[in-house]
Amino acid sequence: MANVLIFGHKNPDTDSITAAIAYAHLKKQLGVDAEAVRLGEVNDETAYALEKFGFEAPRLVEQVAAETDQVILVDHNERQQSADDITDVRILEVVDHHRIANFETADPLYYRAEPVGCTATILNKLYKENGVEIPKDIAGLMLSAIISDSLLFKSPTFTEEDKKAADELAAIADVDADEYGLAMLKAGADLSKKTLDELVNMDAKEFEMGGKKVVIAQVNTVDVDDVLNRKEELEDLLYRVIAERELSLYMLAITDILENDSTVLILGSEAEAACTAFSTPLENNLATLKGVVSRKKQIVPVLTEALSN
Amino acid sequence: MANVLIFGHKNPDTDSITAAIAYAHLKKQLGVDAEAVRLGEVNDETAYALEKFGFEAPRLVEQVAAETDQVILVDHNERQQSADDITDVRILEVVDHHRIANFETADPLYYRAEPVGCTATILNKLYKENGVEIPKDIAGLMLSAIISDSLLFKSPTFTEEDKKAADELAAIADVDADEYGLAMLKAGADLSKKTLDELVNMDAKEFEMGGKKVVIAQVNTVDVDDVLNRKEELEDLLYRVIAERELSLYMLAITDILENDSTVLILGSEAEAACTAFSTPLENNLATLKGVVSRKKQIVPVLTEALSN
Repeated sequence: MANVLIFGHKNPDTDSITAAIAYAHLKKQLGVDAEAVRLGEVNDETAYALEKFGFEAPRLVEQVAAETDQVILVDHNERQQSADDITDVRILEVVDHHRIANFETADPLYYRAEPVGCTATILNKLYKENGVEIPKDIAGLMLSAIISDSLLFKSPTFTEEDKKAADELAAIADVDADEYGLAMLKAGADLSKKTLDELVNMDAKEFEMGGKKVVIAQVNTVDVDDVLNRKEELEDLLYRVIAERELSLYMLAITDILENDSTVLILGSEAEAACTAFSTPLENNLATLKGVVSRKKQIVPVLTEALSN
Repeated sequence: MANVLIFGHKNPDTDSITAAIAYAHLKKQLGVDAEAVRLGEVNDETAYALEKFGFEAPRLVEQVAAETDQVILVDHNERQQSADDITDVRILEVVDHHRIANFETADPLYYRAEPVGCTATILNKLYKENGVEIPKDIAGLMLSAIISDSLLFKSPTFTEEDKKAADELAAIADVDADEYGLAMLKAGADLSKKTLDELVNMDAKEFEMGGKKVVIAQVNTVDVDDVLNRKEELEDLLYRVIAERELSLYMLAITDILENDSTVLILGSEAEAACTAFSTPLENNLATLKGVVSRKKQIVPVLTEALSN
């Protein structure tokens, strides 16, 4: 059992899984007894990336305090997105690219956040700052994370720094980023065989906005109807989730990775307020958000503003 | 009026003032229209450092939102230590070396915290990472901050990284750190002519611990009796502060910079709990904390733990 556990958020995406692996590698090179772990199931897209570059999924951990009293968070900081018992351990470091909220420590720590599109872009800098070379297979994982978070370099979260990192990592990994990237995204975008539970839990994050509990889930697809064909059953399931978790809003963004638009299913007492915030009509609990592909940059700030007033 | 205001915490110390000046200089070199400002009076120690290296004090600002909608925080992050209207502006960046608490943003940001003794040590890295040379006079200010925060390299907060930075900065500034440092500390340690109000406001920070409001003030001196001779009047003043601000605890640490101990005046409903946490008896509202010179490392964590249970 390692001394320091490194993990990304619940419902891990490709950035959360690969950032844990890459940062654990870097820390080990620097003499820290670190292990990458995960807080949830590996999705199909991430599985594709892990296999492509020859990695096993990190070990699944449900409670961290039973194993260690020192952790490092990557790709998240908000308490409700982290391990359930996160308040029982000491957070030594955070490497992240999200807003900061519901985060508090008793002691000083190393906290490195940058407003870039992907944790891997920051890790790419940390390797350099520490004078450690990125191995070919780790570079492939880090490239996969940038492709995932930027939907193949098209999301508005994708910055010049991400582009620079992606170019460097593709060269080290020796892959054609566009070709490999589309294959990886497609591997994660086949929703037709997913159960409803799997669909809504693939990438769901909980937020607190103006004192209200909000869940925003996102799935990527090449065919929105794979999800909409099951709208009624989905609603039944989500109404139950809203009641059980006392949510004010549940938003499921179904993002078309070829068109770069999102169809959103919006339920809960704040559904109308959410639609007003996006200046879009709500019909049958559905709305279309043209050009919206980024939860972090295009959804969370709009809802935070709307629900905080 | 600059586009981006950069400032340290209320009741600014040498690190807060000089970090604002140094980081504003760096940002300007990088093309950002930035101005260093301050949220309170410059203390005698800082005034000594500013004069030594030929700087004016930054402009005093009381409300930031009237001037700009973009700010950068240095040497702090907690809301109650920042500008009163901090929630009305967007925090673009934070460069800090304290715990993170009472801090929240709607958007991703650049956040650089490291568990080192001084903001200047992190700024020294940022100059290097951005390939900007530190001017001689700015290096002098940054060295002053490290001397101040480490009580001339003796505080337990002083790390190897701080030492390395101090050595580099002393070489650039071309000063004898020990000789200059003692003179600077002494300039700030003459408390005999301070009014009571000045004494308790020189370096007072408010914290939230386990839902309770706590103020921990610290003064440096070469003669503890300069303060203790006025103990009764001090208590009258502090009881009033406790009532007005609804504090559970007011701790004034009188730190002897030659002996490296602190005599603490402790008032409020949690005074006994505080003493228990430090395993020291409270007599006449006074306690002695042997070897304690760092609020951040030796006082805040102990009280946070004690008051949160």
